[in-house]
Amino acid sequence: MQLIDGKAIAAQINAESRAAVKELMGRGVTPGLAVVLVGADPASQAYVRNKDKTCRELGMYSEKHELDAATSQAELLALVQRLNANPAVHGILVQSPPPPQIDERAIVEAIDPRKDVDGFHPVNVGKLALGDADALVPCTPLGCQRLLVAAGIETRGANVVVLGRSMIVGKPLAMLLMAKGVGGDATVTVAHSRTRDLAAVCRGADILIAAIGQPEFVRADMVRDGAVVIDVGINRVAAPDSPKGSKLVGDVAFAEVAPKCRAITPVPGGVGPMTIAMLMQNTIAACRRAGG
Amino acid sequence: MQLIDGKAIAAQINAESRAAVKELMGRGVTPGLAVVLVGADPASQAYVRNKDKTCRELGMYSEKHELDAATSQAELLALVQRLNANPAVHGILVQSPPPPQIDERAIVEAIDPRKDVDGFHPVNVGKLALGDADALVPCTPLGCQRLLVAAGIETRGANVVVLGRSMIVGKPLAMLLMAKGVGGDATVTVAHSRTRDLAAVCRGADILIAAIGQPEFVRADMVRDGAVVIDVGINRVAAPDSPKGSKLVGDVAFAEVAPKCRAITPVPGGVGPMTIAMLMQNTIAACRRAGG
Repeated sequence: MQLIDGKAIAAQINAESRAAVKELMGRGVTPGLAVVLVGADPASQAYVRNKDKTCRELGMYSEKHELDAATSQAELLALVQRLNANPAVHGILVQSPPPPQIDERAIVEAIDPRKDVDGFHPVNVGKLALGDADALVPCTPLGCQRLLVAAGIETRGANVVVLGRSMIVGKPLAMLLMAKGVGGDATVTVAHSRTRDLAAVCRGADILIAAIGQPEFVRADMVRDGAVVIDVGINRVAAPDSPKGSKLVGDVAFAEVAPKCRAITPVPGGVGPMTIAMLMQNTIAACRRAGG
Repeated sequence: MQLIDGKAIAAQINAESRAAVKELMGRGVTPGLAVVLVGADPASQAYVRNKDKTCRELGMYSEKHELDAATSQAELLALVQRLNANPAVHGILVQSPPPPQIDERAIVEAIDPRKDVDGFHPVNVGKLALGDADALVPCTPLGCQRLLVAAGIETRGANVVVLGRSMIVGKPLAMLLMAKGVGGDATVTVAHSRTRDLAAVCRGADILIAAIGQPEFVRADMVRDGAVVIDVGINRVAAPDSPKGSKLVGDVAFAEVAPKCRAITPVPGGVGPMTIAMLMQNTIAACRRAGG
């Protein structure tokens, strides 16, 4: 059984990013990312800190905007418009989820599609589906695809089951894996809460990708011997024995599933580090296209 | 075996469209469609004639622009811009395929997304993937979904195999059928030329949708007893015994597949009439959103 080391693969990609940043700086441009956080959710704060830190490690320009939880839609829109107009900012990310007074969709649509490094603007979603190389692709699905390629897992002709039909992971990942080319050409099935006999559908997978946000949902009886399992879930669950009182688990019951697998990603240390690595790559790509 | 009568279902939808047009005209607005044809391909001419004729039958405004095969990209773009600015035109359709000097993607992206009744603009493709009710959805996949609903075929929890991953049919149809709600909630697999053991994958389908553009590709051994088969293909093949010397066949070998099916669409008279009916519905929807 191969344990797919997302941390090591992400570190390799980050090293490539660092070299790209250096090369761009030599030409007088520094890729810049602006991250906006509304409110003080601790998990969101940790994510934002992590993004900011990685930017700095790679030599990129980073700005963090931490706004009060009571920020209005108009105030947030005004900030997005300032960031759209700022030539030092090549990528804009508004941390999800925002407080309830914010219309998240309207905010995403206000971001200049060329700076939409989360890849959630309709123009980017559309370009991804159309196979346009100019698309900024959502970071987590892009990270899953890169992980498969880096780990030497052939997707061409493979039966892939994507568990979960979200716009953040499931749908864009299906688009990526069914597209023509390296890391694509798979026969993709998207399964979800309405799927009949879900275990049987999952057992049909050469590559099973779990992205449903339910702790340890995928059990051993849902996985074929010799399958590859990619676990996108990051769920915090109670762990009375741990010092923190809680721990992170994926959407896969790792202990019982791993022995059946040809390869599997751990949580943490699998898809997670890839997501941030892809955010950096998207920001560098946006900087290049802006003329950097 | 139920023969799904696309012609009758489309006629029913067209009757609803006619009533909607009448109601809009009573409020002083007439839904208008502009169809642009570059060159004199006979099949394209027939399609354009048919669209124009249906518009008139429903009481809609229709303009036909038949341009010389040597029309330049700049000339075509200028026409699209005039149509974008014309308030009497709510829908714009540039008949595919254009001659080789035309960059079709650039033309589609020049159409105002609100008038893109073909649903191929990245903004509409993105909105479809995002489940946005404002999306203008490509006519053929939308017609397939409406056909299933009208024929009383439950998609919820059904295993659907879409054969073909084109942007015109396969991908948008997969999006529609995996979305939440009526005509959706299916477990969708997209199969294509790289799929391993395609016949076995197809036999897994409760609903098989053939959209690969290969005459009579789907044979009896690829279809499970009791399956529903939707045939999107329209292929002209030689038929020495017919007066014309050719005939239309679908992507399904109808004679041998039909006896196994719970329900099947014929070619012609299945999906074809639905495509035009959906074009009319999209134009009416675009008119309504424009304030009609």
